Amino acid sequence: MLYLVGLGLSDETDITVKGLEAVKKASRVYLEAYTSILLVDQSVLESYYGRSIVVADREMVESNSDEILRDAANVDVAFLVVGDPFGATTHTDLVLRARELGIPVRTVPNASIMSGIGAAGLQLYNFGQTVSMVFFTDNWRPASFYDRVKENRDIGLHTLLLLDIKVKEQSLENMARGRRIYEPPRYMTVATCAQQMLEIEEEKGQGVYGPDSLAIGAARVGGKTEKFLAGTLKELCDSDEELGAPLHSMVLLGRRTHELEHEFVREFAINKETWDRIWKADYEGKH
Amino acid sequence: MLYLVGLGLSDETDITVKGLEAVKKASRVYLEAYTSILLVDQSVLESYYGRSIVVADREMVESNSDEILRDAANVDVAFLVVGDPFGATTHTDLVLRARELGIPVRTVPNASIMSGIGAAGLQLYNFGQTVSMVFFTDNWRPASFYDRVKENRDIGLHTLLLLDIKVKEQSLENMARGRRIYEPPRYMTVATCAQQMLEIEEEKGQGVYGPDSLAIGAARVGGKTEKFLAGTLKELCDSDEELGAPLHSMVLLGRRTHELEHEFVREFAINKETWDRIWKADYEGKH
Repeated sequence: MLYLVGLGLSDETDITVKGLEAVKKASRVYLEAYTSILLVDQSVLESYYGRSIVVADREMVESNSDEILRDAANVDVAFLVVGDPFGATTHTDLVLRARELGIPVRTVPNASIMSGIGAAGLQLYNFGQTVSMVFFTDNWRPASFYDRVKENRDIGLHTLLLLDIKVKEQSLENMARGRRIYEPPRYMTVATCAQQMLEIEEEKGQGVYGPDSLAIGAARVGGKTEKFLAGTLKELCDSDEELGAPLHSMVLLGRRTHELEHEFVREFAINKETWDRIWKADYEGKH
Repeated sequence: MLYLVGLGLSDETDITVKGLEAVKKASRVYLEAYTSILLVDQSVLESYYGRSIVVADREMVESNSDEILRDAANVDVAFLVVGDPFGATTHTDLVLRARELGIPVRTVPNASIMSGIGAAGLQLYNFGQTVSMVFFTDNWRPASFYDRVKENRDIGLHTLLLLDIKVKEQSLENMARGRRIYEPPRYMTVATCAQQMLEIEEEKGQGVYGPDSLAIGAARVGGKTEKFLAGTLKELCDSDEELGAPLHSMVLLGRRTHELEHEFVREFAINKETWDRIWKADYEGKH
């Protein structure tokens, strides 16, 4: 049996009881560690589970899934995924391969950022499609997120933005020379996301959002140091210090809002007067 | 401290380790039992937690939250919510009241149907807003879902439909006579949802979807007897027997699809030829 086990969002105790039982009895345990991370180290997980863990990087999962699935028709294999196994990143290809090999699959769901973001106080019913924001480089500034945000905004919906993480990346030089030397991991912050969004609005000029658009920055959702910061995109460009360590994600507000949301989120506002003023002028009753 | 503890989707072992610790040490334990249910009885939960549970119905949570929050500045109170505490149903009003009373609040996230539905094999990135479907009566047929489904379909997105549950409902006669006698609980099935959708399309006639539109019925997501059934809305009108016991939910497909999704979901198809034919004619490459 292949168990796809969600680990939740924060630390080793966010696993479900069902998931923990699956991990403890599995013959081999893999941790998918390239699309998201927990806020604790692998060693903490290993000591908590009483099991050693093989970290599965992207190459292993995408090109060598038969090793993960080896003999899984006869023994139990646990494949651990931060968040929910079918959350932001789906592992459909691994499941399809397991099906081909006649290996039964069971999923152990857990919290995903796609529902966990509800703790920021906005109704999940009023979220449109989720988008990803990747790190811009000098010559690669993918802006497809802009059209999707526009689609959401046009019908009044909030947008959850999931922010890039770069783990096990090679520099061009090391890649060219075939050296397996990896750069330190990088996690996009809300501030970088807000800046990139404003740069793209500047380029496209369709007025999908602007420096005064309201948004919520979220850090370490579900953890003890969970932090939400509400403000304008311009204010959030300068939020690194206050939001602190990764992981971050962000919500751009749509106009379909409720008074309860205003009251709830106001608590997180960088500047309550600014928040109230823009809410009343541009959001309240505007849909 | 008020702990809002998500219970996940299926049975007593879907609680997280963190959540279970919070329940065990709380002075009082409440279970919100009117917006969703677990697939196990309260007595199973009580024996698993080693704690007695007060079932909090809608009236208690909405009108008598101060009883739930009594003394929670000094003692720990656990408020259990099926799924995620801020998932499909948010408990913002309870948190706002806690804030007013100076009571600290901690959330223990868990799987929500809004992310758990990913196990059906569709990318969560391609879901638009979630909608609710309530039981129609002779003179009440709320159709606001139709416009929201239209908004999603217009931009190619899937729609998750959450299906009505009726617990602790009184008949009009019992209500009029003030008798606290309650009807047996009712849970909407995928078949009823599909029928109601087709009735409203018939009335509105905007062609948002039709009998041949593809959808996925889901039953007991996250549980051992989890079941997905893919087919046309017409086919799903007759799915009660195959999908079985509650809870059900449904996804109406949008046209923004991926070949991997086709392959993954095909496994669940009521009729694979029909599924392939309509997929190719109306979905593949149509966005």
